[in-house]
Amino acid sequence: MELLFLGTGAGVPSKERNVTAIALSLLQEDKHIWLFDCGEATQHQILHTTIKPGKINKIFITHLHGDHIYGLPGFLSSRSFQGGTDKLTVYGPEGIKAFIETSLTVSKTHLSYPLEIVEITQGLLFDEDNFSVSCMKLDHGIDSYGFRVVQKDKPGELLPEKLQQLGIRPGPIYQQIKENETVKLATGEILERKNFIGPNKRGKIITIMGDTRSKLYDHAPFVSHSDVLVHEATFNAASETLAKNYFHSTTTQAASLAAQGDVKRLVLTHISSRYQKDELPALLEEARNIFQNTEIANDFYEVTI
Amino acid sequence: MELLFLGTGAGVPSKERNVTAIALSLLQEDKHIWLFDCGEATQHQILHTTIKPGKINKIFITHLHGDHIYGLPGFLSSRSFQGGTDKLTVYGPEGIKAFIETSLTVSKTHLSYPLEIVEITQGLLFDEDNFSVSCMKLDHGIDSYGFRVVQKDKPGELLPEKLQQLGIRPGPIYQQIKENETVKLATGEILERKNFIGPNKRGKIITIMGDTRSKLYDHAPFVSHSDVLVHEATFNAASETLAKNYFHSTTTQAASLAAQGDVKRLVLTHISSRYQKDELPALLEEARNIFQNTEIANDFYEVTI
Repeated sequence: MELLFLGTGAGVPSKERNVTAIALSLLQEDKHIWLFDCGEATQHQILHTTIKPGKINKIFITHLHGDHIYGLPGFLSSRSFQGGTDKLTVYGPEGIKAFIETSLTVSKTHLSYPLEIVEITQGLLFDEDNFSVSCMKLDHGIDSYGFRVVQKDKPGELLPEKLQQLGIRPGPIYQQIKENETVKLATGEILERKNFIGPNKRGKIITIMGDTRSKLYDHAPFVSHSDVLVHEATFNAASETLAKNYFHSTTTQAASLAAQGDVKRLVLTHISSRYQKDELPALLEEARNIFQNTEIANDFYEVTI
Repeated sequence: MELLFLGTGAGVPSKERNVTAIALSLLQEDKHIWLFDCGEATQHQILHTTIKPGKINKIFITHLHGDHIYGLPGFLSSRSFQGGTDKLTVYGPEGIKAFIETSLTVSKTHLSYPLEIVEITQGLLFDEDNFSVSCMKLDHGIDSYGFRVVQKDKPGELLPEKLQQLGIRPGPIYQQIKENETVKLATGEILERKNFIGPNKRGKIITIMGDTRSKLYDHAPFVSHSDVLVHEATFNAASETLAKNYFHSTTTQAASLAAQGDVKRLVLTHISSRYQKDELPALLEEARNIFQNTEIANDFYEVTI
């Protein structure tokens, strides 16, 4: 499972950072890639990666500000132009349907694949075989959501020494025991799986927050125990008033949430272009003073989970 | 007067060519810059030029296919974000208003400048002090237009030797004579300007065509005597059937129009990504066999007029 940051800037693109988009590659776990937000020129950024647009089957839009959605019509069109046929689902706040449909209709774009657009409200979005995703409304002036991606736990490893103690020798029967709650042996004896496997392997949790003001105690339960928390840090620690006025967060507010939520790793993104490259170590330092395991993403930054 | 090609590809962006946009700098002639089409990431391309978005006061959209318009919402928003206050007018086919207004409304974008959107039909768009622009409907499946930009003729140079023959010596009177049809001297004598200036300086003509099938005899009068004709050449000479089926033109069809219209210079753009860099000399050669003064644009290609 990998996160690949395609755009890590705020508001407008700069030469250093494109506007927001984050890919979550689940190729090994689910044969697909998910996209979180799709700012203008996301498809251009993808040209510089190994991502195949046809592999992206879900797009989650945190909120409808232009720097998070203006790349959608182009991405959807190009995915079709390149021959994509697999269904794509877009999840986003109310209005996302009007934006996409008007863009495609006006430009007479006919997609080569089924497109489903789901206008979301707070709560569980879906619960599928390998993952569930839920969302929470944040505090950004307009509807803005965080997404919590929870991988299902997997049964633990088979414990062959326990089977061998019963005289059951390795073979296809081992796989059967692993895949079924109970298995009847040729002898008529019934084995219960739970007695022959180790503890469940815990699924990973990735939480990606949309633009938001800090609301520590409201947001902490939602991000709790994430393996990775992705949070905006539009402003530095000294700019709390600005952050509040513009409905954004500071480095230290994001770090406080990571600490309060007891997450494993915090990745900061959505960095204002007011901060030059040589100021980033200071931004990172002020976050790390509160939550040590913090990183700042730049375009094409990868996080392996 | 300069043309700066910001995107010269067809359909989808590639690493080599962005989708369509062309800037016409009239900074010397009119203190402004005009933009023709605005494919996705046009604002990103502009970051690599000296163009200030606030200087762009007119945008002409040839047609509503995504690769010609999906950069508009982002450009309009960023022009505002950067503090632009001068009025901007967008000219484009019916539907352009719905696209822009839906994009800005859904994303809650409030522009810092007045935006006028003019849905065009064939004919004269405007006739101002320095320039007139007219448009013609082409043949592209959906409404697609060409734009003919005509600079007004300017009075010729003053001929000082003729004034000196009458004993009128250099001074502010020379400027008065140049700027007025008649001037009354202190002696009471009346001078007519036409007797003291050389021939009019002919204004330049730039014609920028939208995507279109070749229609030689329909289009020739519209492009006639252009100083520069910008024409799409999506396909090579051998692909006339493809060009017809997809409502596009070939290199040689564009060159034939340049010859028929007796233009001075032809610039080909909107080159399909099927053609690799090493194939461009062949594309150019087949056009030059018909119209010698042909060039092929690439991104950031400049034409001084």
